[in-house]
Amino acid sequence: MDPNLSQQCLELATRAKAAALELQVLSSALKNRWLIDSARRIEESQATILQANAKDLHKASEESLTEASIDRLRLDPKRLASIAQGLRDVAALPDPVGECLGGSIRPNGLQIQKVRVPIGVIFFIYESRPNVTADAAAIAIKSGNAIILRGGKEAYHSSKAIFDVLEASAEQIGIPKNALQMVSTPDRQAVGELLKLSKQIDLVIPRGGESLVRRVSAEATMPVLKHFDGNCHVYVDRAADLAQARQVVINAKTQRMGVCNAAESLLVDAPIAHAFLLSLAKDLAPFGIELRGDQAAMSILPGIRAATQEDWGQEYLGPIMSVKVVADVDEAIDHINTYGSKHTDAIMTNDIQRARRFTSRVDSAVVMVNASTRFNDGGQFGLGAEIGISTDKLHARGPCGLTELTTYKYIVTGDGHVRDS
Amino acid sequence: MDPNLSQQCLELATRAKAAALELQVLSSALKNRWLIDSARRIEESQATILQANAKDLHKASEESLTEASIDRLRLDPKRLASIAQGLRDVAALPDPVGECLGGSIRPNGLQIQKVRVPIGVIFFIYESRPNVTADAAAIAIKSGNAIILRGGKEAYHSSKAIFDVLEASAEQIGIPKNALQMVSTPDRQAVGELLKLSKQIDLVIPRGGESLVRRVSAEATMPVLKHFDGNCHVYVDRAADLAQARQVVINAKTQRMGVCNAAESLLVDAPIAHAFLLSLAKDLAPFGIELRGDQAAMSILPGIRAATQEDWGQEYLGPIMSVKVVADVDEAIDHINTYGSKHTDAIMTNDIQRARRFTSRVDSAVVMVNASTRFNDGGQFGLGAEIGISTDKLHARGPCGLTELTTYKYIVTGDGHVRDS
Repeated sequence: MDPNLSQQCLELATRAKAAALELQVLSSALKNRWLIDSARRIEESQATILQANAKDLHKASEESLTEASIDRLRLDPKRLASIAQGLRDVAALPDPVGECLGGSIRPNGLQIQKVRVPIGVIFFIYESRPNVTADAAAIAIKSGNAIILRGGKEAYHSSKAIFDVLEASAEQIGIPKNALQMVSTPDRQAVGELLKLSKQIDLVIPRGGESLVRRVSAEATMPVLKHFDGNCHVYVDRAADLAQARQVVINAKTQRMGVCNAAESLLVDAPIAHAFLLSLAKDLAPFGIELRGDQAAMSILPGIRAATQEDWGQEYLGPIMSVKVVADVDEAIDHINTYGSKHTDAIMTNDIQRARRFTSRVDSAVVMVNASTRFNDGGQFGLGAEIGISTDKLHARGPCGLTELTTYKYIVTGDGHVRDS
Repeated sequence: MDPNLSQQCLELATRAKAAALELQVLSSALKNRWLIDSARRIEESQATILQANAKDLHKASEESLTEASIDRLRLDPKRLASIAQGLRDVAALPDPVGECLGGSIRPNGLQIQKVRVPIGVIFFIYESRPNVTADAAAIAIKSGNAIILRGGKEAYHSSKAIFDVLEASAEQIGIPKNALQMVSTPDRQAVGELLKLSKQIDLVIPRGGESLVRRVSAEATMPVLKHFDGNCHVYVDRAADLAQARQVVINAKTQRMGVCNAAESLLVDAPIAHAFLLSLAKDLAPFGIELRGDQAAMSILPGIRAATQEDWGQEYLGPIMSVKVVADVDEAIDHINTYGSKHTDAIMTNDIQRARRFTSRVDSAVVMVNASTRFNDGGQFGLGAEIGISTDKLHARGPCGLTELTTYKYIVTGDGHVRDS
């Protein structure tokens, strides 16, 4: 261990903590001014940011990244405009801080108030597109938190250029110093050092591949808001509108395959399995989706491969889908609660009782009736920008936006009250 | 490692998970029937429970436990009546499950509902009095959770006797099998095994000494709701009613010393330090409280010992209090945010601006104005029974009762909705 690195990380986190104490009382007006000023600056800094992005793209092509990865990395005027618009959208959202969540005046006259407050210092580790730098900073600071950003090395120059713009604006507008900081050492040890600092850092949010999330969860000494895999199911009940069900399954599986709310597993109710699977297979063919089935599914679609035990728990993030024929809604619920990842699961049915049974018994962050799993998304829910989708059950579940980056405190006011017993 | 123990723990947790899936849809009526029936049975089983308690007391005296520890262990008809009443009180509280926390109908017609649901399986590890067995089971099951209880070995027979009563009632009333289970092997390894089972156990709550909480936090693979130390402060501002301030400090320090919401540290505003400390020291003398002060406090009260750096962060849980003279409310806030444990901190003042400054800037679960820190308690807040007081900032902060043992899910209903972009 480099003692300097350890010391640098401690200083970074300590600065963030000091900033967080100021941020908790910052006015909405100032935070919004920063967001709107940053948006303008992003637009005005187009040339600089695209230059930085060119460096990342050059390195990516040298390192032979896949075309898809390079596309995710690429910025252009349109994508920059959308980053700027994202900042303006966060400015337009209500400030969650200060909301009164409850309270009472007790029989003895003690006044109890439960008030929404920021969490404090958030350490955000991400592997994704450069726009996430702006989104995450905007959401964290609008909700009154200091943020420590650690982006993926592929997007380093682009993220840094965007960060510099946000930081320059923060200084100009009067956002507390060090409210946003970036870990710029390429040393992976820095992450490990920061994960030790539970006195300074209140929450870590890893957003990226499963190995990143697992590593962070294992090492962190502070709470982790995890975004694990989305092994999402669609169950097609005997009372479903089968044409609608086909459309939803196709949308959930194919509309965007590499995302956590894409469907990975199809459960079909036995009485309609034959008719439904035959027509679905025809519809899916043009999308090149490989189906892997249980015995019953294989006897209906003889060409498909057998699903192994592992398939049921798999998040493919690609053109594969597991298929199982179930005896009834209860077998579907059991299967989902056994193999699912508590992310998003849907039932297709026109039977209101089975819809109720499914939604009350499937233990997932989002349960859907007659809708594509793809709708589990902060924007689609009307919650505004999100920093991730939690598959944890504690603190926050599903899309995490401004409100999910807050906690609460109790403010109690008396008149010299003392306790007798 | 004993492979049998590992297997037994897995089976125990798997049974709890199956029970949790049933508990999430259990009616309030049935849960309340169980609580009321259990209360009656506790009263009727007085002889059996007191016999079991006698075994624990006999062992305690053999092992020369302190008189205070033995008193905490002791049950008598009055204490049993209070356990029964506690169960009836939980029955009378509103059921948090099913509460609608928000939602909307989106422009595309998709209906979004955010609904309160149980957490799932809770593993509760406690070192305290036998009544906690009944309290914890009542709170967990009323909020729709399965609970795995692991009590301290000192109270084993008493806890087991109470547990047997609750379990017999559960079976009779029709509470899902294994909704409440007790880890009865004395093997400490069992705790370690259970802490590995993050697939089955959703939350662990350690309640006891600091070493227990630290061990559980370090080993747990699932979220932990921690109840760490309460290093609670009272700050006496220059604008305080000094007579009131003396009463509150005395109450906060002496009314019950071994509890987390007792005051451990006193901060006094410089302009009133001399007058206040001299009269306070006189008032505290009969309680045998040792003061440990900074330079300024020592010059006012020459007899007292110097406080070390460690004293400022100390939870004494006994007749010691650290004292510091501060230049103003901001120094008090800084000191608390540096050395406090984010539990409960109070300001004594009649100046409304400084009261606001203190409550908005002190980053603690509970901040008080002109009231004793001893009021941080679920009962005193009108929240009913509590399973602990969280010093975490995530998920739940302060007193944890029924609501804090719940999470939420989104229920989304469409009409064949698919996503375009």
